[in-house]
Amino acid sequence: MVLKLDDVSPQVRSTEYAVRGPIVARAAELERAGREIIYCNIGNPQSLGQRPITWVRQVLALSEYPELLERVPAGTFPDDVVETARLIAARSKHGLGVYTESKGYRFVREAVADFITERDGLAADPEAIYLTDGASKAVQSVLRMLISGPRDGILIPLPQYPLYSATIALYEGTAVPYELDEASDWGLSLATLEASYASAVARGVRPRAVVVINPGNPTGAVLDEANVEAVLRFARAHGLAVLADEVYQDNVYRQGARFHSFAKVMARLGLADVSLFSFHSTSKGYLGECGHRGGYVECRNVPEDVQAELTKLQSVALCANTAGQIVLFLQVRPPRPGGPSRALWEQERREVLELLARKAGIVERGLNAVPGIHCQPVAGAMYAFPRITLPPGVTDVGYCMALLEETGICVVDGSGFGQAAGTWHLRTTILPPLEQIEALVRRLGEFHARFTARGGAR
Amino acid sequence: MVLKLDDVSPQVRSTEYAVRGPIVARAAELERAGREIIYCNIGNPQSLGQRPITWVRQVLALSEYPELLERVPAGTFPDDVVETARLIAARSKHGLGVYTESKGYRFVREAVADFITERDGLAADPEAIYLTDGASKAVQSVLRMLISGPRDGILIPLPQYPLYSATIALYEGTAVPYELDEASDWGLSLATLEASYASAVARGVRPRAVVVINPGNPTGAVLDEANVEAVLRFARAHGLAVLADEVYQDNVYRQGARFHSFAKVMARLGLADVSLFSFHSTSKGYLGECGHRGGYVECRNVPEDVQAELTKLQSVALCANTAGQIVLFLQVRPPRPGGPSRALWEQERREVLELLARKAGIVERGLNAVPGIHCQPVAGAMYAFPRITLPPGVTDVGYCMALLEETGICVVDGSGFGQAAGTWHLRTTILPPLEQIEALVRRLGEFHARFTARGGAR
Repeated sequence: MVLKLDDVSPQVRSTEYAVRGPIVARAAELERAGREIIYCNIGNPQSLGQRPITWVRQVLALSEYPELLERVPAGTFPDDVVETARLIAARSKHGLGVYTESKGYRFVREAVADFITERDGLAADPEAIYLTDGASKAVQSVLRMLISGPRDGILIPLPQYPLYSATIALYEGTAVPYELDEASDWGLSLATLEASYASAVARGVRPRAVVVINPGNPTGAVLDEANVEAVLRFARAHGLAVLADEVYQDNVYRQGARFHSFAKVMARLGLADVSLFSFHSTSKGYLGECGHRGGYVECRNVPEDVQAELTKLQSVALCANTAGQIVLFLQVRPPRPGGPSRALWEQERREVLELLARKAGIVERGLNAVPGIHCQPVAGAMYAFPRITLPPGVTDVGYCMALLEETGICVVDGSGFGQAAGTWHLRTTILPPLEQIEALVRRLGEFHARFTARGGAR
Repeated sequence: MVLKLDDVSPQVRSTEYAVRGPIVARAAELERAGREIIYCNIGNPQSLGQRPITWVRQVLALSEYPELLERVPAGTFPDDVVETARLIAARSKHGLGVYTESKGYRFVREAVADFITERDGLAADPEAIYLTDGASKAVQSVLRMLISGPRDGILIPLPQYPLYSATIALYEGTAVPYELDEASDWGLSLATLEASYASAVARGVRPRAVVVINPGNPTGAVLDEANVEAVLRFARAHGLAVLADEVYQDNVYRQGARFHSFAKVMARLGLADVSLFSFHSTSKGYLGECGHRGGYVECRNVPEDVQAELTKLQSVALCANTAGQIVLFLQVRPPRPGGPSRALWEQERREVLELLARKAGIVERGLNAVPGIHCQPVAGAMYAFPRITLPPGVTDVGYCMALLEETGICVVDGSGFGQAAGTWHLRTTILPPLEQIEALVRRLGEFHARFTARGGAR
């Protein structure tokens, strides 16, 4: 008797993950059949022409194959690349083929702690930092600790990144959505948080934690300091842990907007009684090293015995992959000022971030020029989440599928992220190459006009 | 209010993972205090002097930094290394910085399928192969699919590798141990499987799958073909899926012993009605690339809709790390015969495997020379799991802790793997360098005599 779909646990079957769901599967099918597809479904910058940072790849190559140094002429690699590769060889002891500590290399955790100190002016404890296969795995581990069953509620934004809803479903917890306010640039309001909390409690759910994604995915919003402070006070008032998804912290484009880390605001408020888990990644920012699966979670105000449980959880699959740990190291410890690699690193970094900022503007303006599409400012992250006005009887899923079939543009429907009842959205990345993105926005506009004119029908 | 231990889900708290448990934590403490520790707790070959295979690291370095080719003199890398790096660049399209398909690179899955075909003479479907961050993550995903709650039982060997018990606990399933027979070289008997099954059913548990680890961890046993056949017939009779942990398939040392894959035996029996999940890894064999977290699961007789659930599960954390996927590619697709890298690859491979075989013999004979220690043949894998006779009132945990404190030798107690009531064991790897391993076995023997003479007390 072979396994049947009914044999698969309901936890798995009820899990949904739209970013790689049916629309994307159909796109892959069309591509195999010879169609040109523009993938705007996922924040995967290097798949759309963004180049790796030279510093990262030079050190990584030397770390994978240290004997290389003896086989190439002196000067093949800049001195600071060679020194850093030697440092990694010395500190990792036996190179990248060895399981690291469950938490990850101690020297990388020290470098992450220094990075946090430099960013926020705060002391950071390397023992409270866990290196993971991308931030996703860190989020999953923390949620695994917090959820014991359907009574446990996790407050998540609506719209949200579906990693959260999927993971909560997988561990049989209860997602408690709090609506972001589209009208005020997808801002977060204390009143909405309180209302969500109260309604969850009224349903017998015990909220355990609140998730905030800042800069926002899919919204592109960047929270101001007052917003961050409000979340922390709210969490404190109700005894909630805070999960701060800060993987887009380097992706802030809008004039006047700034990234405010939860750790820094918490320290300024002097809160020692809120447990904070802050996530970061090698996949976004200016690195875009998605494939290497590097990331970390920093715990604050989390007692040692609770951290020990997280360590145990990490230990079951032994450790995060070493190449990803090294990429993270090179992210938080860039070439020193004055060193031979510094100028190129600065140039590459600036080019990536400036280009992303330009594209954010093009997408935002282009979408807003289409009658029936309205897009809030793309202040940060890598996405636009415009509202779309659809003919009656049509869903955003149908719209996105038709968009794909007619134009080859692959975006994800708003339903995959959650949206206020009666509204429709789509999420598109801002990542396609500059020369494509204007055409892309234009084609989307033309499609929208056609689709609306025919009432959604073929 | 900060999180307390009580806030951590019981699923996490009840999980145990001895391979990285308290004894190992104590070893790290002693090491920081300046003691020399010999880590025999974990199969981590490169941490104990095993060198990476040159082929793997050369191609990997070029794949991380393709521009390197333009910066080094012609001939720096062998031609087949350059060709393979170019193939990887072409097939991965945008290099290692990009999320792959959720299942992993298609070209690596094709290479794995070819490897299975060559090994077993069977057709294999690349779409039924999933690349994962080490085999551990593959095992966890398959168990996540099969377990919906405490009624779901998973038959696991006793002793077992604690990944299984830990993951079953994490997903709130029920572990159903079946005892391996120490007296017959840790063989597997149909009668024991049937008895375990029947007693689970009598307790209201619904067995879903049977796990087999072959070659055995921690036992070092290699199943003969009749054993594999018996498991398959048993699984078929009761409608169980089979999880075949075959990560040590290249680690067979004992004269006359041979690895028999479940896939091949299943095909020979013509069984089309048993769902089989077979796991393999880059961490063991002759590569020992533990840190890179490469591995796969191949599904056989698993319908497409069930596989789609596995794909979805993989998609939530996006994909396995790319460096690990490439290491797996280089494992299943070694240098072609006649190519410039072939001779060195053959030599390095042979040296690793011959050395492991010698060490297996030294450990087995050395332990058996100690009165009060009895070790079954170390026919395969990387471990010995000797039975130890202890004074009354002493446990194997106390024994292993005392061994660590007095000699610096870090092994894991049998309790961490499970053992028949009234027996005590320890697991040691056979990995320390040749020049250390004889001394190590001698010191263990001397310790055992001392410990026994004083009745276990200090």
